[in-house]
Amino acid sequence: MQRYFCKGKKGNEFILEKSDYFHIEKVMRMKEKDQIEVVYNKDVYLCELNNFHVFQLEKLDKKEQIEPEISLIIPLLKEQKMDYILQKATELGVTRIIPTVMERSIIKVTEEKEEKKLIRWTKICKEASEQSMRTQIPIITKIHHFQDFQNLEGVKFICSTREKENNIKKLLTKHKNCDKMYIVVGPEGGLSEKEEANLVKMGFVPVSLGTRILRVETVPLFLLSIINYQNME
Amino acid sequence: MQRYFCKGKKGNEFILEKSDYFHIEKVMRMKEKDQIEVVYNKDVYLCELNNFHVFQLEKLDKKEQIEPEISLIIPLLKEQKMDYILQKATELGVTRIIPTVMERSIIKVTEEKEEKKLIRWTKICKEASEQSMRTQIPIITKIHHFQDFQNLEGVKFICSTREKENNIKKLLTKHKNCDKMYIVVGPEGGLSEKEEANLVKMGFVPVSLGTRILRVETVPLFLLSIINYQNME
Repeated sequence: MQRYFCKGKKGNEFILEKSDYFHIEKVMRMKEKDQIEVVYNKDVYLCELNNFHVFQLEKLDKKEQIEPEISLIIPLLKEQKMDYILQKATELGVTRIIPTVMERSIIKVTEEKEEKKLIRWTKICKEASEQSMRTQIPIITKIHHFQDFQNLEGVKFICSTREKENNIKKLLTKHKNCDKMYIVVGPEGGLSEKEEANLVKMGFVPVSLGTRILRVETVPLFLLSIINYQNME
Repeated sequence: MQRYFCKGKKGNEFILEKSDYFHIEKVMRMKEKDQIEVVYNKDVYLCELNNFHVFQLEKLDKKEQIEPEISLIIPLLKEQKMDYILQKATELGVTRIIPTVMERSIIKVTEEKEEKKLIRWTKICKEASEQSMRTQIPIITKIHHFQDFQNLEGVKFICSTREKENNIKKLLTKHKNCDKMYIVVGPEGGLSEKEEANLVKMGFVPVSLGTRILRVETVPLFLLSIINYQNME
C-alpha cells in the first residue's frame, strides 16, 4: 500500500504535503475511499480518502527496527553520487546523514546554496522513506566541519585505507548491540593524514573495510548492509 | 595506478583494446615511460609506456580473493538499474551475472538486441573491474530461462519475500566457506509463486533478507556486501 509521511493532524484528518496530495490524485490516480498508510510520529495509520482528504481508519501495529542509531558522516559529493547515497542509505535504515567539509573533497557549497541543497536532500530522503516503508525519515543535518565532532557519545569509527590490522568485522563484533554509531566515510582520495589523526584524537577508531576497492558512494551501502546483517536474528 | 585488462601478449608487449590506448593517451594524458598495471590471465604486471605501446616491467604479486564464486541470477531491468547492478556487483566481487527472463519483469530483449546488450554490459563490467582493481572481469552470460538452472552444483538460494523463517544469516552461517553460490534476485513485484515453487524443486532454498524493504537494484549490493563481510577474517 502507498505510504506517506504527514506533517500534522486535525482531529481525525491527517495533513499531508501539497506534493503528496498531488501525488495521490494525479500520479497514483486514487479514487474516493481508496486506502493509504500515513506515518505520524513514527506510528503507522491505515487511512481512507474522502474528497481527497485523508482520514484515519485505524492505527496499525507496524514498527521499524531502529537500533542501532546510525549517523553517517560523509563528504560533499557531486549531485548524482550524493542523491544516490541519500536514497540507498535511507532504504538501508540510516538515522542521520551529516554532510561534512573534507580536505580532499572537490565540491564546495556556499551558504546561499546550502539551504536549497538541504531542502532537496530532505525531499529525496522523504520519498525514499515512503518507498521503503520506513516509519522515520533520516535527518540530514546542515553542513559540518570535523571540529564539530568533539565529545560524541557512541561507537565512533573511520573507514580508513591506512588501517591494516583492525577491520570492520572485528569492530562490529566487539560492539554488538551498541545503540549509537558515528561512521566517517572519506572522499575520493581518502581523508588526509591530518584529518584522520584529529579524528583519532576525538576518539574515532580507524577500521579497514577489507580488500575490495570500493567507490565512495558504495561505502555507505556496504556499511549499512553489514550492520543490518549483524543485527539480524 | 591505472589498471587495464589486456587481451593478448606479444613477447614483452601487452596488447590492449583500442579504447584503452585512447584512454591512456587522450583521457589520462599519459607520457613516455609512464607506468600502468596490466592484468593478463588474472596476473597483474607493472608496465611502462613506450611510444604508446605497453611493455612489461615486472610481474606483481597481487591476487584477488575470489572465493566464493558467486553467480547472480537477476531479472531484465531498465537500462539504468541494470548498469547500476553490473557496476556495483563488479565492485563487490561478483563472479558471474546471469540475466534471466522472469514472469513479472516488464523488460523484453529481442534476439537481435541481445548481442548489443551483452557487448554493452561486458564493457561496463570491464571498466568497473579496472577501477576497482580486480584481476578478473565478471562473466555476463546470455539471457537465460529458469529451466536452464537444473542440476547446478553449489549453494543455491532465492531472495524471497514469502519466506518468514529461514533468513540469509542462517543460510550463510550454515554454508560458511562454501566455494560456489547461485543467488536468484526477483524483479519488482517478486517472483511468481509458480516460479518460486519450480526453483525449490530444482534445489533452490528461499531465504528472507530481513525486515527492510529494498529495491531490486539494491538487493545484489546488499547480498555481496554481507558475503564479503561473512568471509572477512
